[in-house]
Amino acid sequence: MENYDAIIIGGGPSGLITGITGKKLNPDKSFLMIKKDDKGLVPCGIPYVFHDLEGVDKNQMGPKGFIKAGGEVLVDTVENVNLAEKMLSTKGGKKLSFGKLVFATGSVPVIPKFIKGYDLGGVEVIKKNYHHIKNLREKVISAKNIVVIGAGFIGVELSEQFAKHKDKTVSLIEAEDHCLYRAFSKDFAQKADEMMEKANVNLYTGTKAEEFIGENGKVTGVKLANGKTIKADIVISSVGYKPNTVLAKKAGLEIDQNGAIRVDNYLRTSEKDVYAVGDCSQTIGFITGRTDNIMLASTATAEARVLGYNMANISLLRNFAGTLSVFSTEIAGKAFASAGAIEQTANEADVDFVIGRFKAADRHPGTLPGVSQLDVKLIVSPENGEIIGGEISGGKSAGEMINIVSLAIQKAVTVYELVSFQIGTHPLLTTAPTKYVLIKAAEDAINNIKECRK
Amino acid sequence: MENYDAIIIGGGPSGLITGITGKKLNPDKSFLMIKKDDKGLVPCGIPYVFHDLEGVDKNQMGPKGFIKAGGEVLVDTVENVNLAEKMLSTKGGKKLSFGKLVFATGSVPVIPKFIKGYDLGGVEVIKKNYHHIKNLREKVISAKNIVVIGAGFIGVELSEQFAKHKDKTVSLIEAEDHCLYRAFSKDFAQKADEMMEKANVNLYTGTKAEEFIGENGKVTGVKLANGKTIKADIVISSVGYKPNTVLAKKAGLEIDQNGAIRVDNYLRTSEKDVYAVGDCSQTIGFITGRTDNIMLASTATAEARVLGYNMANISLLRNFAGTLSVFSTEIAGKAFASAGAIEQTANEADVDFVIGRFKAADRHPGTLPGVSQLDVKLIVSPENGEIIGGEISGGKSAGEMINIVSLAIQKAVTVYELVSFQIGTHPLLTTAPTKYVLIKAAEDAINNIKECRK
Repeated sequence: MENYDAIIIGGGPSGLITGITGKKLNPDKSFLMIKKDDKGLVPCGIPYVFHDLEGVDKNQMGPKGFIKAGGEVLVDTVENVNLAEKMLSTKGGKKLSFGKLVFATGSVPVIPKFIKGYDLGGVEVIKKNYHHIKNLREKVISAKNIVVIGAGFIGVELSEQFAKHKDKTVSLIEAEDHCLYRAFSKDFAQKADEMMEKANVNLYTGTKAEEFIGENGKVTGVKLANGKTIKADIVISSVGYKPNTVLAKKAGLEIDQNGAIRVDNYLRTSEKDVYAVGDCSQTIGFITGRTDNIMLASTATAEARVLGYNMANISLLRNFAGTLSVFSTEIAGKAFASAGAIEQTANEADVDFVIGRFKAADRHPGTLPGVSQLDVKLIVSPENGEIIGGEISGGKSAGEMINIVSLAIQKAVTVYELVSFQIGTHPLLTTAPTKYVLIKAAEDAINNIKECRK
Repeated sequence: MENYDAIIIGGGPSGLITGITGKKLNPDKSFLMIKKDDKGLVPCGIPYVFHDLEGVDKNQMGPKGFIKAGGEVLVDTVENVNLAEKMLSTKGGKKLSFGKLVFATGSVPVIPKFIKGYDLGGVEVIKKNYHHIKNLREKVISAKNIVVIGAGFIGVELSEQFAKHKDKTVSLIEAEDHCLYRAFSKDFAQKADEMMEKANVNLYTGTKAEEFIGENGKVTGVKLANGKTIKADIVISSVGYKPNTVLAKKAGLEIDQNGAIRVDNYLRTSEKDVYAVGDCSQTIGFITGRTDNIMLASTATAEARVLGYNMANISLLRNFAGTLSVFSTEIAGKAFASAGAIEQTANEADVDFVIGRFKAADRHPGTLPGVSQLDVKLIVSPENGEIIGGEISGGKSAGEMINIVSLAIQKAVTVYELVSFQIGTHPLLTTAPTKYVLIKAAEDAINNIKECRK
């Protein structure tokens, strides 16, 4: 029986970065990655294969970096893990033993079993699998009426891409009052709604899909709770993902109340020498301090770096007390990004806050060609001025600006410090130095803290 | 004689922000701004009036925000300041007394007196004055052969804009070996050189303008130290700026060895109740700890906020120990940005450092339309991993990414922390989470620190 010092189950972003980091730091140890699919996809790029990328092939992601670092890859499916004997067996008939084992098994789409007709032909979910997406793309391209269920990031991005095909009628159904309502406060989410309409997506918010209607076992429409029926040649359900823990459960690992593999700060499971990382593992909210389930590639890779550096021994302290969701997307040319607390999550978690707000052009003077309006909202602790969250909409620069906010949250930067923050500005690249949006929003928060104290 | 609680001399970014911030925080105090010109310009926008902005009028900047906050504005020139009696007189015949006085008199271009023929007609400098620039624009538009002296930011940006007019031959002369060599290390500066060539600018580096040649008192060419002579209908000299301290000197304020008004951390001059802010005042280098002369609108506004908050009493601690230069620009569609130490300045100041480097596409997958390559270099202390500088080239997002580096330097973030830094990524907006350039450059620096220790 072959033995490896470390075996990683899964070849997504977290498996990949764990493998690359771990192998580079332990060049004398043998690393094997076992992945189910021969071809991998950039997960966050999946919506864009339907239009901007013109197909699946430009969105491939493979274990090249891991192999270059000296790791081995096996395309196969792990069927059983025996933790007591530190060995596993695969569908392909392999039996392998390991020193350390990493579950990087990702997440799987929630099947909408709570909606009648969910098993009709043409009711699809988005699996992060090359062949599935390639196949789905063909179905989408040949459809005229497309209905998407769930206006989270994936639903929004898919709908926007589908609607770029001028021959299609695209409808998006969301039970909440707005798109992206878990990541943005009301006024930002409303702007996202507007951009969806601008993208030629028919948006139905505040109502649920009640039934998928079919003929001859194939979907033909979606009946909404508000009584309306929408014609559908294909339905894409994107109502969420859940940790893929079938194998972990079978192996006897502890699972938390959200269905994720329980881990500590260094991604160690309930079993010695066994780790879980990425979507399949538990996260603790940065602001709320509670367990939750944040499934983002950026989060997964941050965890994977912590694991990769520390799997031999703790050599690099984990720098984040909890997982900060940092989201970004673009709808019809307008970027939306958020980090940390928003008003809804702060209220839910009983966090006291004030708001700082500012809007300005993302170039200066604002008369330059290609200008967009940046709109920044900071969520700030009134006690000490610490920044605990932020939302930004605007041009593409919002995508990196949210990472300034993200670093500020992680380093407990206060609005008082931000006021004299030294920045770089340039007419073609940023807001004017006199109106730099983050600083002006910080000033607004300082004023609002003063008002609070009156 | 009219009395004001505070008088600010100058209406540029530092005067404006001092006025707006100070007045808002002290609404019961009277504030007067005295500015020389009826119309003001966005200083960093000046190069762009020559092409992208299609004229001077789209680049105006005025004291509207200050007036809205309740400040008064006088267009006039201060001729004498009597500090003992706390009064001043203007060219327009006004005599005013003040409680506090702020010098925000900016900087003036260096006249190239060290080059023979500097006083010929057609040898011009860039004054930050509406009428001067409007007039100069007409001369530039009607010229065919334009020679720019000095490839700092202003020289580079002007040349790039001039060369967008297809009927012109633009030459740029720089004594150093590369463009922008005070802000970028050799390999980044070389890329800037390449972009200038791409922008159809004839670049002559490593040689000086020795003489301006003329006929009938008007410039016709520039003779270089290397023997070559370049035809010129107009010459723009942009060899530097110096603090405008004529009035401050006359008033008896202390001037430092760089010719700037000496100030302390709270912008207080040698005289009680008298302040100096922006280009005319002294700065202390963040990394070097020595006095130097950083003249940037972004630096000026950071100082102005500190002054505005603290001119009544110290109510907001200054958050920066020294001035961190944060530069950014764009040449022919490629952004270049730097913050803090670069190799040359670190060597000069005897600062020990290692480098961390990484390159990746600024979208993911890298096959998306509109993609650019991001290239990041971090300058890191090998002692504790603190980030002390960074350079970035790439697409527009480099303009905000340098502000992440800038915040990291100011908050003494180490590369060890950056490795598990939680970021937001999106296919259309950023590098892939697996290759996020700042984190990968931090990892590279960690490896290089390890190598150092071997």
